Amino acid sequence: MDILFVGDVVGSPGRDMIKEYLPKMKRRYRPHITIVNGENAAGGRGITEAIYKQFLEAGANAITLGNHAWDNKGIFEFIDDAKYMARPANFPEDTPGTGLVFIKMNTQEIAVINLQGRTFMPPLDCPFKKADELIAIAKKRTNIIFVDFHAEATSEKQAMGWYLDGKVTAVVGTHTHVQTADNRILPNGTAYMTDVGMTGPYDGILGMEREAVLHKFLTSLPARFEVPKSGRKQLSACLIIADDVSGKAKSIKPILINDDQPFLDE
Amino acid sequence: MDILFVGDVVGSPGRDMIKEYLPKMKRRYRPHITIVNGENAAGGRGITEAIYKQFLEAGANAITLGNHAWDNKGIFEFIDDAKYMARPANFPEDTPGTGLVFIKMNTQEIAVINLQGRTFMPPLDCPFKKADELIAIAKKRTNIIFVDFHAEATSEKQAMGWYLDGKVTAVVGTHTHVQTADNRILPNGTAYMTDVGMTGPYDGILGMEREAVLHKFLTSLPARFEVPKSGRKQLSACLIIADDVSGKAKSIKPILINDDQPFLDE
Amino acid sequence: MDILFVGDVVGSPGRDMIKEYLPKMKRRYRPHITIVNGENAAGGRGITEAIYKQFLEAGANAITLGNHAWDNKGIFEFIDDAKYMARPANFPEDTPGTGLVFIKMNTQEIAVINLQGRTFMPPLDCPFKKADELIAIAKKRTNIIFVDFHAEATSEKQAMGWYLDGKVTAVVGTHTHVQTADNRILPNGTAYMTDVGMTGPYDGILGMEREAVLHKFLTSLPARFEVPKSGRKQLSACLIIADDVSGKAKSIKPILINDDQPFLDE
Amino acid sequence: MDILFVGDVVGSPGRDMIKEYLPKMKRRYRPHITIVNGENAAGGRGITEAIYKQFLEAGANAITLGNHAWDNKGIFEFIDDAKYMARPANFPEDTPGTGLVFIKMNTQEIAVINLQGRTFMPPLDCPFKKADELIAIAKKRTNIIFVDFHAEATSEKQAMGWYLDGKVTAVVGTHTHVQTADNRILPNGTAYMTDVGMTGPYDGILGMEREAVLHKFLTSLPARFEVPKSGRKQLSACLIIADDVSGKAKSIKPILINDDQPFLDE
Ligand SMILES: [Fe+2]
Ligand SMILES: [Fe+2]
Ligand SMILES: [Fe+2]
Ligand SMILES: [Fe+2]
Ligand SMILES: [Fe+2]
Ligand SMILES: [Fe+2]
Ligand SMILES: [Fe+2]
Ligand SMILES: [Fe+2]
Repeated sequence: MDILFVGDVVGSPGRDMIKEYLPKMKRRYRPHITIVNGENAAGGRGITEAIYKQFLEAGANAITLGNHAWDNKGIFEFIDDAKYMARPANFPEDTPGTGLVFIKMNTQEIAVINLQGRTFMPPLDCPFKKADELIAIAKKRTNIIFVDFHAEATSEKQAMGWYLDGKVTAVVGTHTHVQTADNRILPNGTAYMTDVGMTGPYDGILGMEREAVLHKFLTSLPARFEVPKSGRKQLSACLIIADDVSGKAKSIKPILINDDQPFLDE
Repeated sequence: MDILFVGDVVGSPGRDMIKEYLPKMKRRYRPHITIVNGENAAGGRGITEAIYKQFLEAGANAITLGNHAWDNKGIFEFIDDAKYMARPANFPEDTPGTGLVFIKMNTQEIAVINLQGRTFMPPLDCPFKKADELIAIAKKRTNIIFVDFHAEATSEKQAMGWYLDGKVTAVVGTHTHVQTADNRILPNGTAYMTDVGMTGPYDGILGMEREAVLHKFLTSLPARFEVPKSGRKQLSACLIIADDVSGKAKSIKPILINDDQPFLDE
Repeated sequence: MDILFVGDVVGSPGRDMIKEYLPKMKRRYRPHITIVNGENAAGGRGITEAIYKQFLEAGANAITLGNHAWDNKGIFEFIDDAKYMARPANFPEDTPGTGLVFIKMNTQEIAVINLQGRTFMPPLDCPFKKADELIAIAKKRTNIIFVDFHAEATSEKQAMGWYLDGKVTAVVGTHTHVQTADNRILPNGTAYMTDVGMTGPYDGILGMEREAVLHKFLTSLPARFEVPKSGRKQLSACLIIADDVSGKAKSIKPILINDDQPFLDE
Repeated sequence: MDILFVGDVVGSPGRDMIKEYLPKMKRRYRPHITIVNGENAAGGRGITEAIYKQFLEAGANAITLGNHAWDNKGIFEFIDDAKYMARPANFPEDTPGTGLVFIKMNTQEIAVINLQGRTFMPPLDCPFKKADELIAIAKKRTNIIFVDFHAEATSEKQAMGWYLDGKVTAVVGTHTHVQTADNRILPNGTAYMTDVGMTGPYDGILGMEREAVLHKFLTSLPARFEVPKSGRKQLSACLIIADDVSGKAKSIKPILINDDQPFLDE
């Protein structure tokens, strides 16, 4: 079971990269399943139903989200019908949507879990307890469990990796929009990397126009951040190869596509 | 001018890595100058005079620090005499120590600046304004200016990189203890990477014993974090190659040494 | 049912005030039950078994705690036997101690609940959900329910007051160590005030020595805060008068004892 | 020199209270100068030029602001011409507006300083250092100096009070929207209270509609807060009486006007 995961897609530059490179990556890596984090897909803030469907059409099998899940109010209209979309599972019990979805690939099934961190982030239920709970449910159907842990602090993300080592196939971080170089297989067989990074503008700040972000840091005055309309782009992803039966990961390989590291069509 | 920079050295495992690999890296990469972030060198909390001297003896030319600079009270005894040590420059005016040191290498001089971020961190003076101020001073003596920006948030670190692009040789992040994969040369010639990562235990959480950190996340109870006494180790660093005259960077290359990526003596 | 509640007792100055004024207040106000927040009773950090017993001997019927509950490690030795002590209920399920205690006064019973906020404070389970849960349990035995909501943000505290209006006798805040002037009976009969304030040094900063706190604000350097050994003292409390049957509050009156507002023995 | 200060005016309910009660309070207390914090005057977010002028017409001599100063974009159009308006002084050097204004009353002059805290708030320059700087300027013209310290944490506010004790006439807090009961004259003659409280809706949460705020706390979902259009109102203020020559405060008296504590026309 090979899993391709693409990190936070930001605005139309990010969606353009998905349209262009998702098919190419699928041809090259031949993943059995493709997952895309779409929390910033609609202008940097949330996701619309049209974009959700676009991602599925472009080749994604599941969409994960994060703290920006709710920014585009349209989410509340379609989230409960979006069978292939997981929002952070540790929102309160009665939150719309779900944090665990199952994807069927031939005879194989994979569980996709989305969790959100709490360090330097708003209060939520405990992501560690919630992970235990969802893994118990998932284990009844499959050993292949993918966790997108959307969190800020490296400590909380590493803690989650080690906590789930041996219980899931992969714990992969999102949210900081910067890919980390610490991809590894933990001792009990869980693939881990702190952050997969972002898919969108290559010359912005976290995918937003630099001027507004710099203005805020320099002046402490409020600023409205927008995704740049033009400019160079990047895609951040990873490829996990796992054993079909045990669900243990054999490798996790980071993928970066940008002007400095172009994706070369062979 | 080739600059070797080693990220946050944590406790005795980190110091062991310095002793073993700093000479090896110097033989292989032949840097003109070597800088080490030592904010966690003494048991994870601060630095002692003995360790400072040890680092210099092991081949470091300058030491940078961070938010943990003050954890070991001994710092106040020797910081004002430590000519090759920079603490975050944007502490208040009358703080002991300095945030800008000059290192002379033959006829060349390099300015080393240490700054600390404010997002998700305690209040300090503005690191952007302070950077402007120190760069103006440094520019009178040299075009080769290295900035260790010790900060938590990827947004603030990227903002600093872009803000200083073209003004300094390198803006390299520390503090998160996880190396990022976004090393690049920005359009105006500044080498940038969000975080160099940590030097110390390979199987801890940010270099601390996993049990205590997990206990804290799971129980919300206080826990005392210690550096593990034994176990596998890692070293995180980067090598920057810059033009001697203009100070512009030509390349920035990440270095990781651990069990999964061993340093092979040729 | 008249309830006397004394806010965060800080160190020996706070304990001295309890010893001196608890008997005097009991003579004057004749409360049916007396509750004391003891989270800072042991040198500003947590509580010991000896102090817990001292408070009961001085006339307290129940002790509440807060974020400092765990600072004195001795707590783990006696908390499960301390029948009259409530720690914040929204710590994770398996945390030692309990967040709901019942006190019997003749034929009457009162439920005492301790909750902790999450805004500007470390992650915990949702205090609002936990309140619902505990109130459902308490309601089976009594209509008189007292809630000490230990929280930082005025927004979260007011929100809790309004959320529980009509469901409990009183929602009274602690933690900021400053008494607020907003004591009132909410429309559905719940007594509310944002913070009862602190019992301890009158001339410190939140009950700690001024010099250390000012040093920290001025220098951004670490500082160890201690409770002053001598100097003027204060006591902060409130008196709630409630209907025995319905549990509805009739009045909530703040009490302040200090050099500027002395407690006059009649 | 008697100073009347009214805490954060929130939306039209707050402005209605100013219109109705400022004249009445001025008749009763006969202050020589009246200051109003207007950071939430325009629908809870910032202030417009029309409202600024309205406040002056209603009898205010100076307006102070806070973290919400910049919410209404119109501020940038008129702040540099608003001679009687102070925004937090510890924004960066080149921020529009000023943090120190002088008001002339017959032969007397009063300096009004606005500062913003940093604990649990966004990064700014050090308010303690900035206070020193502005007080040095103000002292050349007058001994009567009023400081509105707009801050969240009780520790930072008390620290400022003690830091400035003997240097200014009054340090009065705003921002938490809840009046505190700790008004006092510090040993060296500075009037202090942690927070004056809010002027606006009496039955909201910090002056905002309860439903939205509760929704946010209960669901962790985003919510848009609005000032209630109707309902009961309150006014929070304080009166400081100071010596004309020395500028030392003789008394500080809190004022609350609401349904439970009506302002009785004699
Ligand atoms: Fe994102
Ligand atoms: Fe995010
Ligand atoms: Fe560090
Ligand atoms: Fe650090
Ligand atoms: Fe306390
Ligand atoms: Fe507390
Ligand atoms: Fe306000
Ligand atoms: Fe405010």
